[in-house]
Amino acid sequence: MAEKEKATIVVFSGDLDKVYAAFIIATTAAAMGKDVSMFFTFWGLNVLRKKKFSFGAPRFLQKMFGFMNRGGAERLPLSKFHMFGLGTFFMKFLMKRYNMQKISEMIKLAKQLKIKMIACTTSIGVMGMAKEDFIPEVDEIAGASTYLGLAFEGNVNLFI
Amino acid sequence: MAEKEKATIVVFSGDLDKVYAAFIIATTAAAMGKDVSMFFTFWGLNVLRKKKFSFGAPRFLQKMFGFMNRGGAERLPLSKFHMFGLGTFFMKFLMKRYNMQKISEMIKLAKQLKIKMIACTTSIGVMGMAKEDFIPEVDEIAGASTYLGLAFEGNVNLFI
Amino acid sequence: MAEKEKATIVVFSGDLDKVYAAFIIATTAAAMGKDVSMFFTFWGLNVLRKKKFSFGAPRFLQKMFGFMNRGGAERLPLSKFHMFGLGTFFMKFLMKRYNMQKISEMIKLAKQLKIKMIACTTSIGVMGMAKEDFIPEVDEIAGASTYLGLAFEGNVNLFI
Repeated sequence: MAEKEKATIVVFSGDLDKVYAAFIIATTAAAMGKDVSMFFTFWGLNVLRKKKFSFGAPRFLQKMFGFMNRGGAERLPLSKFHMFGLGTFFMKFLMKRYNMQKISEMIKLAKQLKIKMIACTTSIGVMGMAKEDFIPEVDEIAGASTYLGLAFEGNVNLFI
Repeated sequence: MAEKEKATIVVFSGDLDKVYAAFIIATTAAAMGKDVSMFFTFWGLNVLRKKKFSFGAPRFLQKMFGFMNRGGAERLPLSKFHMFGLGTFFMKFLMKRYNMQKISEMIKLAKQLKIKMIACTTSIGVMGMAKEDFIPEVDEIAGASTYLGLAFEGNVNLFI
Repeated sequence: MAEKEKATIVVFSGDLDKVYAAFIIATTAAAMGKDVSMFFTFWGLNVLRKKKFSFGAPRFLQKMFGFMNRGGAERLPLSKFHMFGLGTFFMKFLMKRYNMQKISEMIKLAKQLKIKMIACTTSIGVMGMAKEDFIPEVDEIAGASTYLGLAFEGNVNLFI
């Protein structure tokens, strides 16, 4: 097969550790010359959010939900050991000590490696976000059928 | 390849948001003409449970476990923001506002689209359930080898 | 295709229920004659840890992290119903009652079935572990590119 091998990753989780794993796999695959797409949905959308984002006036409930669900790549929690943020603090400390990249740097690396980053249309509505809330690195806003079109061509498809 | 492309989804989680994502992917794939199987195991079995279900008398411990693990497609928690159920409440409110379907409606849609819904034999025992505890939409009760037989023919295989 | 079909499983989670599901799928696939690799990363590394493990002196922070993150295949928590360990207790009780194998027995079975067990290099550093901290059943310590090399040859690739 002369065609490039493909991988897709659904980033459903917004937890620091899982998002980190997703970017490690995605960037490693891209560095190996594979064609990689990341589809961010539900809590995973937080990764692609700007630190400050605007709310439309009548979106009262999304506002409340958005308040609970503060975003930005540097504010992701850990899936374990929340303990008032202590776990996240230690993990970030260890990542720094071992010269591991921050998620915001992983996003830049992903762009350089031509990884396609797609934000899920449906989730954007439910989570109370708008197009303006996302960082410019997002390539496309699309639905599940776009993801599946890529996944059925993919050799490795993961849900994280 | 003239054969229909196949997808399998292991629904391990019983969290509302993850189950929702599983059904969105499954029904979208089926609507695209793919052959889709969903394999419900562990907490995912809660999706397929009747609201009221019967306990065998001597099954004391499963009873306790079953009590902790109340089921039914309308009672699934959220993987984040439990906060005394507030998160689930907001998510359901937003889903309603955006005309998104309830899980029970997703199950009906899945049936119409001929998605195969399989409940995992092994988990049924451990979780303290019996065949009568499940909704009639369940196509089959089968083990991991049935799932794997489908997955090895599948083009897209996800674990949610 | 005369070649053996392949499966890979990323064991990211260290939760008893998810690890259990990973081993059920892996050992069933291996028993069906497939070539199976398990790649343990992040919390999943706890599965492969010795009960007692040594700390290097200056690794102060990893020590703290390691303290929070006590390991060993018999000490894994459950992804739901922690409730002061009650959920895990019931699940273990039910598993015993139904003659289900302990994780340590699943590891032995996996070895007998020639499942390749790989521990992730990157995570080992971040989680504050060393090679000596792992049980002898570990076949290899390797990075994401080793995993991806196997996954791109795989027919079934799951992230658990």
